[in-house]
Amino acid sequence: MEQVKLYDTTLRDGMQGEGMSLSASEKARVVLALDALGVQMIEAGFPSSNPKEVELFAQLAELELQQATICAFGMTRRRGTAAEDDPALATLVESFTPVVTLVGKTWALHLEKVTKVSREENLAMISESVALCREQGKRVIYDAEHFFDGYRDDPGYALACLAAAIDAGAENVSLCDTNGSSLPDQIAAATADVGAKFGERAELGIHVHDDAGCGVANSLAGVREGARLVQGTINGYGERCGNANLTSILPALQLKMGFEVVSDEQLASLTETAHLLDELCNLTPNPDAPYVGRNAFAHKGGMHVAGIEADARTFEHIEPALVGNNRNVLPSELSGKATIRSQAEQAGIEIDDEAATRAIAKLKQREHDGYHYEAAPASFELLLRYEAGLYKPLFRLESYKVVTERRAGGEVETEATIKVEVDGKHYLRVAEGNGPVNALDRALRGAIVDRYPHLAEIELTNYKVRILDQDHGTGAVTRVLLDSADSEREWGTIGVSENIIEASWEALVDSLEYAFQ
Amino acid sequence: MEQVKLYDTTLRDGMQGEGMSLSASEKARVVLALDALGVQMIEAGFPSSNPKEVELFAQLAELELQQATICAFGMTRRRGTAAEDDPALATLVESFTPVVTLVGKTWALHLEKVTKVSREENLAMISESVALCREQGKRVIYDAEHFFDGYRDDPGYALACLAAAIDAGAENVSLCDTNGSSLPDQIAAATADVGAKFGERAELGIHVHDDAGCGVANSLAGVREGARLVQGTINGYGERCGNANLTSILPALQLKMGFEVVSDEQLASLTETAHLLDELCNLTPNPDAPYVGRNAFAHKGGMHVAGIEADARTFEHIEPALVGNNRNVLPSELSGKATIRSQAEQAGIEIDDEAATRAIAKLKQREHDGYHYEAAPASFELLLRYEAGLYKPLFRLESYKVVTERRAGGEVETEATIKVEVDGKHYLRVAEGNGPVNALDRALRGAIVDRYPHLAEIELTNYKVRILDQDHGTGAVTRVLLDSADSEREWGTIGVSENIIEASWEALVDSLEYAFQ
Repeated sequence: MEQVKLYDTTLRDGMQGEGMSLSASEKARVVLALDALGVQMIEAGFPSSNPKEVELFAQLAELELQQATICAFGMTRRRGTAAEDDPALATLVESFTPVVTLVGKTWALHLEKVTKVSREENLAMISESVALCREQGKRVIYDAEHFFDGYRDDPGYALACLAAAIDAGAENVSLCDTNGSSLPDQIAAATADVGAKFGERAELGIHVHDDAGCGVANSLAGVREGARLVQGTINGYGERCGNANLTSILPALQLKMGFEVVSDEQLASLTETAHLLDELCNLTPNPDAPYVGRNAFAHKGGMHVAGIEADARTFEHIEPALVGNNRNVLPSELSGKATIRSQAEQAGIEIDDEAATRAIAKLKQREHDGYHYEAAPASFELLLRYEAGLYKPLFRLESYKVVTERRAGGEVETEATIKVEVDGKHYLRVAEGNGPVNALDRALRGAIVDRYPHLAEIELTNYKVRILDQDHGTGAVTRVLLDSADSEREWGTIGVSENIIEASWEALVDSLEYAFQ
Repeated sequence: MEQVKLYDTTLRDGMQGEGMSLSASEKARVVLALDALGVQMIEAGFPSSNPKEVELFAQLAELELQQATICAFGMTRRRGTAAEDDPALATLVESFTPVVTLVGKTWALHLEKVTKVSREENLAMISESVALCREQGKRVIYDAEHFFDGYRDDPGYALACLAAAIDAGAENVSLCDTNGSSLPDQIAAATADVGAKFGERAELGIHVHDDAGCGVANSLAGVREGARLVQGTINGYGERCGNANLTSILPALQLKMGFEVVSDEQLASLTETAHLLDELCNLTPNPDAPYVGRNAFAHKGGMHVAGIEADARTFEHIEPALVGNNRNVLPSELSGKATIRSQAEQAGIEIDDEAATRAIAKLKQREHDGYHYEAAPASFELLLRYEAGLYKPLFRLESYKVVTERRAGGEVETEATIKVEVDGKHYLRVAEGNGPVNALDRALRGAIVDRYPHLAEIELTNYKVRILDQDHGTGAVTRVLLDSADSEREWGTIGVSENIIEASWEALVDSLEYAFQ
């Protein structure tokens, strides 16, 4: 089977999407997730002297990856400067990455109207920049910006830009539909022409955007005509209407077009990876997303279910498990007694039939209320322990009170008071914090740390808030996810309430309880 | 210019989407909106004796439409029954609509596995059902269910089903990709074959689903090979991953492929129509939707803005006004003075050079602190107003205090107290809420509503919380985004603080301030 490679630009182009922002360590987690999925090339961004980028590249250099190659992104040299003297190019070649992706102008209209660079100078900029990177030992991908617009306007010049990059040593030229203007037939015709002219000298890549709602089909059209590297982002993140959605492209290439892209096991982790990236970006997964959405294989019962039982092809375009999705992702369907018992077993909890039935009922109610245990396995385990009669409360809460006050002078102060009982003894503690949840956390720990010294070692590593049912304004239900860790393990808990403080409290208590079960 | 017609199935297939439901009168409003947009055929649903459907068809029969034709939908007759004796067909032909769309099996696999009907009987079901409708004076569209799967499996039988419909008098055969399994090349090849065999005897239609993320491209591939009726839904509503999205298909046909579909004025109402339908269906418009999303023509300032000013083609695949959308220049870390001034101009704010420089400096600082104005244009406008010396504060805050208390009995209560001054008068107010932000919102409004009665009309429509730098646990910085609306407009504001209550307060105050500027 012929190979097609994926090139993910979530960390550069994806970050141009509205509201997207990730810390350096979150970006490193994205890289690990993409590597585990089998993505061959991962674009990390522009290396620069900006401290945030320095930190990111330092972190990425230390990652141990299975097969992915990290690419650094930059532009062709400035006009009127020798490539050697261009500081951005210097930073680029100094980065640790074996591959450099250079973007350059390819559409004569942009030279005239935007950069005011002559056609000849632009060719020299491409050629000399690629040559410099090659001399410094880098493999080079040339991103031909606005290629398809340029090809329609002036094919001779657009092709000359590709020739300049290839002659100077680029191993791949990636044809970009930067404005997302093209339809599949236009992509196919232009890619076929490039393949006929340059196909033997360089690999072709395809990089498109979804402005016409054809990002997936355009990428596939490019592959059909010879592109063997597909650039895009997981879940189609990106500015405007987004980049080509690799989450839809990967299964089409592998399951419908017969290409070899990733292993079967990796493909089966697609849904999980897509949801993990949404989680890191604090986005709600699109329930209607092709292949990975929770509705992607939803059936309305009756004839569908009978048909599926007779032959799944009758109502499903692919087997959902191939991409790690489920025929019916409703929590009620997932939480059969067998699932509950196997979950309990994994956690070392003995649970009888009656308790499993109670756990299912509680789970259904909780999921209806907005709980989401996939991201909070520790809270789920506590629920099982409770139903199995194995739950030991750490303390009994008598009351708490959190006061946030903005004084006349403008300073904001928060303090929390907590009353708890442990083994018949009452503890009362007050603490300040930089926010209500922080204050509550400190007060609770202060109250019981003498009794449970291990508490001092538990760190809250991640705190996420999602407003469910956002249409209800500030009266909406809030879901809090909390990640905690001690020196040995990490665990996730959840709380849900109309009141963000109560939701946070729930997740906090679960977190501390879990550490002592 | 050649004509392509749109056939909207929002009221039938669209209603299969998760959470979709419309009353009869809302459906009538949808029909009027589609008619105004220029949609040629509108499928109303299954006429039946169900009182809701009776009411709908009665309402629709009374509508005065500009050009749209209403279609009633039904299935081919039951097996083993004469068409004349089938009660569902009887209801169908009795409905007021001039056009009847009949769906029938076309894939032999379904006959074997699902309906257990012989191939011959299925052909008779198609033929006799179409014939009955024709005899009763109806125009007939035959929806060939699972056509593309059937064509790949057994092309001879799939084509025989079409022949049965056409021989019996169907004016149109619509080729359905019911499971959304096909890629554009498959659609193109099959449609071309049908066109060659039947193109002179019947019009071809194309009806696809978005399970492979290719719904738009598949529809366009069908048109390229001869289909002249495109079935789909506004905004791509529909079960699983949705139906083909007419909102993306219409501008591609008219602006990119040169077909005549609707008038220029009608095309310019596309964005408004798409948003109206979302509103009727109680869905939040997708900000990243092709053509009609608020990000579809977003630009990040700097070079983009300069390019657009020189020639809009440089960075825009179509003129946004052609589909009734707007260019949206985003304030961002990259933005220069030109962007600031153009933003100010759009908001009707006169800003001099010095003020623009100050605004840029403040913007940079704020973005460094975690503000993100792209999603909060109202807060950005207030910042500009402030720097331009045009900002009028609504009130002066003296202090607030929010108390959340969990009592010994387990009940959680929240109350907020606020002291503000307006025009030298002091106002003190306390309010309860289901969470701290809700309580604060109520207290603030309560305090100043007498002075600003318009406040009562302002609704908080969406409240989002994002924890930045999540690695700091519950001590992390919080960003709050708030959407508000009155009867005329919608606006978004932002607040950032380590304290979620203070961050929410900031966004809340900006929201109310903005309404009065």
